[in-house]
Amino acid sequence: MTASFAFTIEHRDGEARAGTFATPHGPVYTPCFMPVGTQATVKTLTPAQLAETGAQMILANTYHLSLQPGADIVAGAGGLHGFMQWPGPILTDSGGFQVFSLSSLRTIDDDGVTFREPKSGALVRFTPEHAVAVQNALGADVIMAFDECPPYPADREQVEGAVERTLRWFERCVEAHRRSDQALFGIVQGGVWPDLRRRCAEGLVAADLPGYAIGGVSVGEPQTLIERVVRVTAPLLPEHKPRYLMGVGTFREMAQAVAVGVDLFDCVMPTRVARHGSALLLGTGGDRRINLKNAQFRRDYEPLDCVCPCYTCRHFSRAYLAHLVRSEEILAMTLLSIHNVATLTRFAALLRCAIATGSFAQEFAHYLQSGPEPVLSN
Amino acid sequence: MTASFAFTIEHRDGEARAGTFATPHGPVYTPCFMPVGTQATVKTLTPAQLAETGAQMILANTYHLSLQPGADIVAGAGGLHGFMQWPGPILTDSGGFQVFSLSSLRTIDDDGVTFREPKSGALVRFTPEHAVAVQNALGADVIMAFDECPPYPADREQVEGAVERTLRWFERCVEAHRRSDQALFGIVQGGVWPDLRRRCAEGLVAADLPGYAIGGVSVGEPQTLIERVVRVTAPLLPEHKPRYLMGVGTFREMAQAVAVGVDLFDCVMPTRVARHGSALLLGTGGDRRINLKNAQFRRDYEPLDCVCPCYTCRHFSRAYLAHLVRSEEILAMTLLSIHNVATLTRFAALLRCAIATGSFAQEFAHYLQSGPEPVLSN
Ligand SMILES: [Zn+2]
Ligand SMILES: [Zn+2]
Repeated sequence: MTASFAFTIEHRDGEARAGTFATPHGPVYTPCFMPVGTQATVKTLTPAQLAETGAQMILANTYHLSLQPGADIVAGAGGLHGFMQWPGPILTDSGGFQVFSLSSLRTIDDDGVTFREPKSGALVRFTPEHAVAVQNALGADVIMAFDECPPYPADREQVEGAVERTLRWFERCVEAHRRSDQALFGIVQGGVWPDLRRRCAEGLVAADLPGYAIGGVSVGEPQTLIERVVRVTAPLLPEHKPRYLMGVGTFREMAQAVAVGVDLFDCVMPTRVARHGSALLLGTGGDRRINLKNAQFRRDYEPLDCVCPCYTCRHFSRAYLAHLVRSEEILAMTLLSIHNVATLTRFAALLRCAIATGSFAQEFAHYLQSGPEPVLSN
Repeated sequence: MTASFAFTIEHRDGEARAGTFATPHGPVYTPCFMPVGTQATVKTLTPAQLAETGAQMILANTYHLSLQPGADIVAGAGGLHGFMQWPGPILTDSGGFQVFSLSSLRTIDDDGVTFREPKSGALVRFTPEHAVAVQNALGADVIMAFDECPPYPADREQVEGAVERTLRWFERCVEAHRRSDQALFGIVQGGVWPDLRRRCAEGLVAADLPGYAIGGVSVGEPQTLIERVVRVTAPLLPEHKPRYLMGVGTFREMAQAVAVGVDLFDCVMPTRVARHGSALLLGTGGDRRINLKNAQFRRDYEPLDCVCPCYTCRHFSRAYLAHLVRSEEILAMTLLSIHNVATLTRFAALLRCAIATGSFAQEFAHYLQSGPEPVLSN
């Protein structure tokens, strides 16, 4: 089956775009926030609850799924869509980020990476061909090229090496990719060096893939530096392809990235902070994260957010959520995850709406004002 | 508001009855299994998921809720129904069982019990008046008298004392009860001694309450002894009032109790074993509990139970559930809790249906055959 992964830009407002990305499992309206389902589950949520948050497309992790349950077991269920019963679009990352951030005792050579899996202690090898084969078996709509993601801080020489390896591995990923019903995206590395970002982007863009990602950000660098890197890198990617900023999902970072033409986002933050008792509140001008352990919420009978249409806000008071958090009840994690994912989803929808009506810069001005300009290394 | 707590028996099959128990939050069709929501949440389930399992009436715990968040906070939300957003009938236990089983350093006097709360270390005092006042504030449809629940084994003298105290405390509970929109149920104690069960039942029945419970069973005694105690005690309770067997919820125990005229059940087992990776399978003749950690389920793409209409069985394979259990994902607990509660609910509905069609003894014969008759102490 050859699928169309057309990206249609319907509205523009400055560099910001509102588009529709076609996938075999339905259209994705952008800007779009993708919740993360690392182990083939967006933690604590059923697919039904997830759909009700307004989530369109979700992410799963090749690294984790290749180790447990193994790609063959997922493939036996008809791929990730059947296995986890998510009917909408799915994206799998390549495992590159996890191989470089989670595993210890790793040896990188030009052919791939060998590492010790932290849980089992087993030696595992990832190559570009392996990362693509696993993703072909998992069957997501969008799969990612296997890249080398250097940490922050890293010296220029290390990042330069990572860019060259990412480019060589990219060619091999393109070569290894077998399924025309899956879109392969390339990942731009290059750390905080604009010329390395350019070098990497140019190498990838030549392949004319259905989409491109900005990787290697949100790996520990200060927020203003993230914003600068995105501002430098986004324009290097093809105008008529979706642009995906990996691992980013705060209101401010998303708005800043949308302003320079980014379309897709993912982040574990909304579900992770939910499991620690925190709710994201979307305000105009001042966004807040509240922790329900705080004594002030014990007798607060208001919903988390009186304008939020999520299941949690339609039904439950802060007092009840505070009780669940204090009682260490799992339902606290579920109800807060529902609200936090719904809030990020709603934020992306508000961005889209503002772009469509030409009011993006005005409505989101409070996110777009820069702090002091950081000096990018060069 | 004066509520009707009428219990209408619609069908009889031997001693088994199929009835309807009227409550301010709707009718309860019996036999009925009530899932337990100790801390105002049936663990891992939203009220929407719980309703979808077919659960009609749920149980919450006075002991836990009086300590966290405190009855006043629940009352401020309009009672438990508003606080936890369960629109159907709710029953609260009196705290008696927890005070006697969970707390250490307890001192019983004729007026009440003083104990050290395990979590906070605080000294807490429960009296019949306090247990009723808390339950009046929590606002459940059915509230339970404060009783003394002796452990098993206990010598006759200890159980005799508990029965006398339970009867005196019962009078004070009836006296203290303030809300006519709540039904107060008495609890029969008496351990494994039929004459003590009779003594206790006769003392309670005189008050002509809307319902009665059999307490002090499933506290560690062998299953055949549970069955004998229930068989001796159920006929001592008024024919035209609902009979509630506390803390019991296996298929066999429920069927045995229904056979002697019991109507209501509760048990933490279905949700507790779910959190440990186990699913209850309802068979004809041989019921099974399977643990999804077992290697045989890793590639088993069948649902848990192909005739179960629950959300879990409609969507997910054993292979996916096995993956979630191995990955220690919370969604495993949620999906297994949905299935297990739905299975107990469906079992109660099957009992009701068999009674209505006069086929109870035949259809449930495999549960009703007694093992070797245990000798009851006397
Ligand atoms: Zn909400
Ligand atoms: Zn089921």
